Amino acid sequence: MVLKLYGSPVSTCTGRVVAVIEEIGLEYELVPVDLTTGEHKRPPHIERNPFGQIPALADGDLVLFESRVITRYLVRKYGKGSHLLKEHTPEEAAAVDQWIEVEVQHFNGPISTLVYQHLFLPVFYGGKTDEKVVAVEVEKLGKVLDVYEAKLSKSKFLAGDYYSLADLHHLTYGHYLLTTTPHASLFHSRPHVKAWWESIASRPASKKVTAALSFTS
Amino acid sequence: MVLKLYGSPVSTCTGRVVAVIEEIGLEYELVPVDLTTGEHKRPPHIERNPFGQIPALADGDLVLFESRVITRYLVRKYGKGSHLLKEHTPEEAAAVDQWIEVEVQHFNGPISTLVYQHLFLPVFYGGKTDEKVVAVEVEKLGKVLDVYEAKLSKSKFLAGDYYSLADLHHLTYGHYLLTTTPHASLFHSRPHVKAWWESIASRPASKKVTAALSFTS
Ligand SMILES: N[C@@H](CCC(=O)N[C@@H](CS)C(=O)NCC(=O)O)C(=O)O
Ligand SMILES: N[C@@H](CCC(=O)N[C@@H](CS)C(=O)NCC(=O)O)C(=O)O
Repeated sequence: MVLKLYGSPVSTCTGRVVAVIEEIGLEYELVPVDLTTGEHKRPPHIERNPFGQIPALADGDLVLFESRVITRYLVRKYGKGSHLLKEHTPEEAAAVDQWIEVEVQHFNGPISTLVYQHLFLPVFYGGKTDEKVVAVEVEKLGKVLDVYEAKLSKSKFLAGDYYSLADLHHLTYGHYLLTTTPHASLFHSRPHVKAWWESIASRPASKKVTAALSFTS
Repeated sequence: MVLKLYGSPVSTCTGRVVAVIEEIGLEYELVPVDLTTGEHKRPPHIERNPFGQIPALADGDLVLFESRVITRYLVRKYGKGSHLLKEHTPEEAAAVDQWIEVEVQHFNGPISTLVYQHLFLPVFYGGKTDEKVVAVEVEKLGKVLDVYEAKLSKSKFLAGDYYSLADLHHLTYGHYLLTTTPHASLFHSRPHVKAWWESIASRPASKKVTAALSFTS
């Protein structure tokens, strides 16, 4: 039974799941959900995700939503050989969890606002970038990346010297920030963040995902 | 070696961790970090959590921050007999993960804003509740609780018929919303949410935590 991923290849949250699928090497079918017609707010999609968002995954009868829940599930179910999660001991598991949660609680907010302001707002909604909002979020993201810089000066990746879900979850917003906004220097001016980013972005699985994030020039 | 929890007993995020400690029945020492003097932004606390927030946990040499990372770690390390996480199969694990993530992504934002507007802002910062902000967040939280109502009409708790971390993570903000804001009806007007809340709040471990959330009258 082939996995069905409901979403859109240009969406950051869908891409986060595709990155795991490509890392593990799974077969899947991407079932498009058209946000422009509100398909995500109606049945049958609203039955897959009661919050009316993409992505959702169907694996046989099991239906899940929230990209980071889906990634965790896929690794546990199909990616035991990978190091994307290390759950042999509570301590190893916590090392990955620590930075998965940092991405959610600290990184995602400012970076998603910046990508919205520079990409989605002008390109899709015909709006104008609010430079005051941008300034606040650039400052916030810079502080978060200072913490990353310190951590990445001690290990190659966030959880340790191995690539894990904690790193992978940064791929799609990182890509949009670096390729569609004027803030790439937030990453490039921090040498360990820059090297970390290059390790992430150059992975074959990552390249397949970012090739589909097609707003890039 | 006794666990050291750095935080404050009136803080929602510290209380979330204490709830797990009490459920499992662990010994711990609460080491106070005084937010009013900025102790959380300076060494040694900033070395425990580079984002300068409470709580942080030290278990011997292992130091963790982010309340939901700490709760997961404690259950895996010391609470194997409990059903707070069910990680025997990827499907069971995902059932809990699904609603842990919903709390983070959908519930925490509006409820924390409401508690801030009605409790922390006026009581600590001498500010005035912004009724426009309140109206927006009441509407958002209501929609989230509609999803909970539908889910809880099918199972006693969020992940299934057992109390898990997914429920427990709601305890402290739920308590403040119900006891210090005029919005208790958001929970009480939804019969399954109401019954769910009563199951959570009446647990002996929960009562120990909420007794310490001492802004309540
Ligand atoms: N926390 C969710 C966020 C999902 C999300 O925001 N999806 C966007 C596309 S990237 C969406 O569906 N937007 C339409 C909407 O929210 O109405 C996840 O990681 O899956
Ligand atoms: N996502 C974090 C949030 C931590 C947090 O916001 N802690 C508050 C107290 S509940 C704090 O330290 N506030 C002071 C600050 O942010 O400067 C967690 O769950 O641990």
